[in-house]
Amino acid sequence: MTNGLHGVIPYIATPLRADGRVDRPVLTRLCDHLIGAGVQGLCPLGSTGEFAYLTRDQKAEVIETVVGATAGRVPVIAGVASTATADAVSQARDWAALGADGILAVMEAYFPVPETGVVDYFTAVAEATPLPVTMYTNPNFQRSDLSLSAIDTLSHHPRIAYLKDASTNTGRLLSILNRTEGRIGIFAASSHITVAVMMIGGLGWMAGPSCIVPGQSVELYRLCRAGDWDAAMVLQRKLWAVNEAFARFNLAAAIKAGLALQGFDCGAPVPPQAPLSAAQLDQLRAILDGLGAL
Amino acid sequence: MTNGLHGVIPYIATPLRADGRVDRPVLTRLCDHLIGAGVQGLCPLGSTGEFAYLTRDQKAEVIETVVGATAGRVPVIAGVASTATADAVSQARDWAALGADGILAVMEAYFPVPETGVVDYFTAVAEATPLPVTMYTNPNFQRSDLSLSAIDTLSHHPRIAYLKDASTNTGRLLSILNRTEGRIGIFAASSHITVAVMMIGGLGWMAGPSCIVPGQSVELYRLCRAGDWDAAMVLQRKLWAVNEAFARFNLAAAIKAGLALQGFDCGAPVPPQAPLSAAQLDQLRAILDGLGAL
Amino acid sequence: MTNGLHGVIPYIATPLRADGRVDRPVLTRLCDHLIGAGVQGLCPLGSTGEFAYLTRDQKAEVIETVVGATAGRVPVIAGVASTATADAVSQARDWAALGADGILAVMEAYFPVPETGVVDYFTAVAEATPLPVTMYTNPNFQRSDLSLSAIDTLSHHPRIAYLKDASTNTGRLLSILNRTEGRIGIFAASSHITVAVMMIGGLGWMAGPSCIVPGQSVELYRLCRAGDWDAAMVLQRKLWAVNEAFARFNLAAAIKAGLALQGFDCGAPVPPQAPLSAAQLDQLRAILDGLGAL
Amino acid sequence: MTNGLHGVIPYIATPLRADGRVDRPVLTRLCDHLIGAGVQGLCPLGSTGEFAYLTRDQKAEVIETVVGATAGRVPVIAGVASTATADAVSQARDWAALGADGILAVMEAYFPVPETGVVDYFTAVAEATPLPVTMYTNPNFQRSDLSLSAIDTLSHHPRIAYLKDASTNTGRLLSILNRTEGRIGIFAASSHITVAVMMIGGLGWMAGPSCIVPGQSVELYRLCRAGDWDAAMVLQRKLWAVNEAFARFNLAAAIKAGLALQGFDCGAPVPPQAPLSAAQLDQLRAILDGLGAL
Repeated sequence: MTNGLHGVIPYIATPLRADGRVDRPVLTRLCDHLIGAGVQGLCPLGSTGEFAYLTRDQKAEVIETVVGATAGRVPVIAGVASTATADAVSQARDWAALGADGILAVMEAYFPVPETGVVDYFTAVAEATPLPVTMYTNPNFQRSDLSLSAIDTLSHHPRIAYLKDASTNTGRLLSILNRTEGRIGIFAASSHITVAVMMIGGLGWMAGPSCIVPGQSVELYRLCRAGDWDAAMVLQRKLWAVNEAFARFNLAAAIKAGLALQGFDCGAPVPPQAPLSAAQLDQLRAILDGLGAL
Repeated sequence: MTNGLHGVIPYIATPLRADGRVDRPVLTRLCDHLIGAGVQGLCPLGSTGEFAYLTRDQKAEVIETVVGATAGRVPVIAGVASTATADAVSQARDWAALGADGILAVMEAYFPVPETGVVDYFTAVAEATPLPVTMYTNPNFQRSDLSLSAIDTLSHHPRIAYLKDASTNTGRLLSILNRTEGRIGIFAASSHITVAVMMIGGLGWMAGPSCIVPGQSVELYRLCRAGDWDAAMVLQRKLWAVNEAFARFNLAAAIKAGLALQGFDCGAPVPPQAPLSAAQLDQLRAILDGLGAL
Repeated sequence: MTNGLHGVIPYIATPLRADGRVDRPVLTRLCDHLIGAGVQGLCPLGSTGEFAYLTRDQKAEVIETVVGATAGRVPVIAGVASTATADAVSQARDWAALGADGILAVMEAYFPVPETGVVDYFTAVAEATPLPVTMYTNPNFQRSDLSLSAIDTLSHHPRIAYLKDASTNTGRLLSILNRTEGRIGIFAASSHITVAVMMIGGLGWMAGPSCIVPGQSVELYRLCRAGDWDAAMVLQRKLWAVNEAFARFNLAAAIKAGLALQGFDCGAPVPPQAPLSAAQLDQLRAILDGLGAL
Repeated sequence: MTNGLHGVIPYIATPLRADGRVDRPVLTRLCDHLIGAGVQGLCPLGSTGEFAYLTRDQKAEVIETVVGATAGRVPVIAGVASTATADAVSQARDWAALGADGILAVMEAYFPVPETGVVDYFTAVAEATPLPVTMYTNPNFQRSDLSLSAIDTLSHHPRIAYLKDASTNTGRLLSILNRTEGRIGIFAASSHITVAVMMIGGLGWMAGPSCIVPGQSVELYRLCRAGDWDAAMVLQRKLWAVNEAFARFNLAAAIKAGLALQGFDCGAPVPPQAPLSAAQLDQLRAILDGLGAL
């Protein structure tokens, strides 16, 4: 099942105040800003949203705020992540009750989990919600991975509709597309060249960097959809500097620093993560300046 | 600072009922049983205790139960684990308030954390508690590691007293002992040959397998302390089959299965972890039978 | 410096007789066949050519045979690989003397080599030859890698002109192109989607699979150069099955099996490598049949 | 089959002159020196001997020189290493013809080799020689590894008698001893605590560091054999600094530098390996000085 999700769907940063509470006014302004720039969806509690560092209460506050700020203008895809199936199921139910339009499902692991366990986990999340589910796999940061055969099995579930892949292996996405024969829509992460993913048949991208270059990202998506690959590559080549910076820096620290430069004070990343150093901040400012994003 | 922690300190399994609640009667009986077998301490919320799969409420219930059941007969070393410094600090405070005698501190990670962040995390935990802290490092399952220089730095903190290492690299333990010059006491995990760790100067071991072979473990410790290395190796060679089984199986599933065979019904491991298969259970039964542990 | 290398450059398999001698007649026929299919160059002693398994005498025989068979119709890029700088230099000199038109340089490693050593090795090879040098990096099979800064440094050498990358990370190629600003031409390996690499500015590909689908590969290259990306993707999607098979099977075994099906009996891969199993051979036959390559 | 190999068997460095020729007089003096210090065997063409960097002619010259210098006083265990079975077989035959007393067999790999291929390789080497074979596994530097079941299978061959393991996993050695029930004798590498390996039943060690602390190594072996574990650990703790240095530095560079300080000028390691820096040399000198080895 694919229900029309597509385009640029930023992984929204989670603005936190010094006392650890979610900064609802900044988050609301940020949602407005991104929707105004033309993004096709919003994804709170992705990796850039620091899902791995927030309490359950903070997470609920994020979803509630983003759903309220968005007010139905674009779909809100809410992140669910846990090591335990029951906890993931409970999150998926809560986020649906709070008004989310879709679920981004992440499986974390401590002890290794065999493929049957991986399939059970994602199936249980999909069973727990009426919403379409996007599976998220990030072999660099998560201690589990979705094999090609697990993805194939899961693609037959009526509510498992999309995959966002944060490996660097673009060929793997083509293998997934060939293997699932239209049952799974693919979204790129910032570790892929988005033009390449669009060309092989991707639906768009879910990524942190789109928070700080939303207009340029939307334009890149438009060029790809129009089949204007040459113009798309000219823009892609310039935007790639942002992706490279995010691979080099702490992801949340970099997005929060970029947003602060743009007038959205999101606070520091959750410790022990550290903010960007002064030198890193200079690099980021130069990159954004070069893209006309300041 | 080392304050006398030593010997066999089992990583206690967390008995869970079908409804997900902690099974307090079974946990209480298990504590009594282990203390009766002569163990020198108890460690709830280690990896075998499935810390990575429990909610905060479940964790508090475990600590409260173990502290109550132990009633001061042996020290209770309570596990603290998080990706976020503030959350770890809060756990450490709560476990001290519940009556724990020491803290076992684990740092989890999603994004990579540089050494300064690792040092900050463990220092913050130690600052938050009057209790002695044992650092726990498991490069196989955790996405962070304690470097030799981080351990050296942390060893100067007045309350960071011990290290439990779950790598398979026994030589690294000798490097740590040489480098910290008496400031850090070393405990082995089940991935090390405990006799070898005792011979190089270790204080004992914190490990899941000791839950199901507590008497044999205590005898092994006694032989090592007596310097009767030949007899110790005879026993070690037999006990090693247990360590091998735990490296091959899911750790929590194996300990819970072994305890069930001994009359302590701890329920299944938290899904998506799976219980042992029938064939695995047969292997485990044969191993325990061969050790006279059934 | 880039001197015009481009297009489809097959990594030629090394036909070996049962007595271990190079099968010159088969190798000669294979070169004729590939050139007849329109390939833009030939690369003997790439990974598919089993450079890691051949003696120096076998290697020289391969270069001599390919140079003779090609007779100047397309450039011959000869593979140089060693752990030792002096040995690599000696190979580069010998292959130039035998009439090669370019060098493909591989650095093998046993002990880890820091970046200065990597730069020294490739520089020494380039100094030893008047021919343009293609650096080859394969992080999956080689125990060394070329960092972005090492590539940047080496790109300033007047004879280091190209890079063939066999990682699966297509984004890395864009980073290299951006960083070296025209000083290095990029060739894909079979681990990349070749259309994606062409779109970001690649020159072509050096790869084993092109040995068994040379006509289809040349057609794919033509479509890319013409900017007919939609038609290119239709063909790419079908050809990708070949790339997937090669990632799954032993590379040399698969190419040799495919060539045998096409009438070029190349013998078995060098033991302890094993030929394809009967089941694997059936899979490969079905793939080639589906592509009209039998 | 175990035929009595035991004790301290240094991995001898390969002295090379500036022109790349083996420095026979230095190598001869070094063999005399080590035998004079009481070592129980000599192993040319181990990893410290730079087997991965030498030509076949250099290797033959090394074996010939060591056999001549030793003159039967201790067994000479000659290193065989290749990616190709036929090449390994040929080396094993040649080294036996040159008078070696045993074979140390290493399997190198470029493409991954399944377990049947690994078993075939070592079996072919053992079939090619009347000499006892020691399997050498080093998962850090070699692209292949011997699984427990491969070792078990190979242990039934009448001439495969020993294993030298250069992992850091001491527990694995106990598993191998338990599994092979006396069919395989175990030697430690410098990555293990030798006292720990002796205590679990090891026969001795084959290691580079013994080249530069031969007398101390022989004394350590004597203490272990006498069961004087306390005295052994006092000496082991001091000698461990040498093992740590070798894990930190390039192995061949460090041994050659240490030997030069002791009057054996072995030249530089084969480029692109680099000699120790001045700062590293100072560290090594201080370590050797502290051990009375200068």
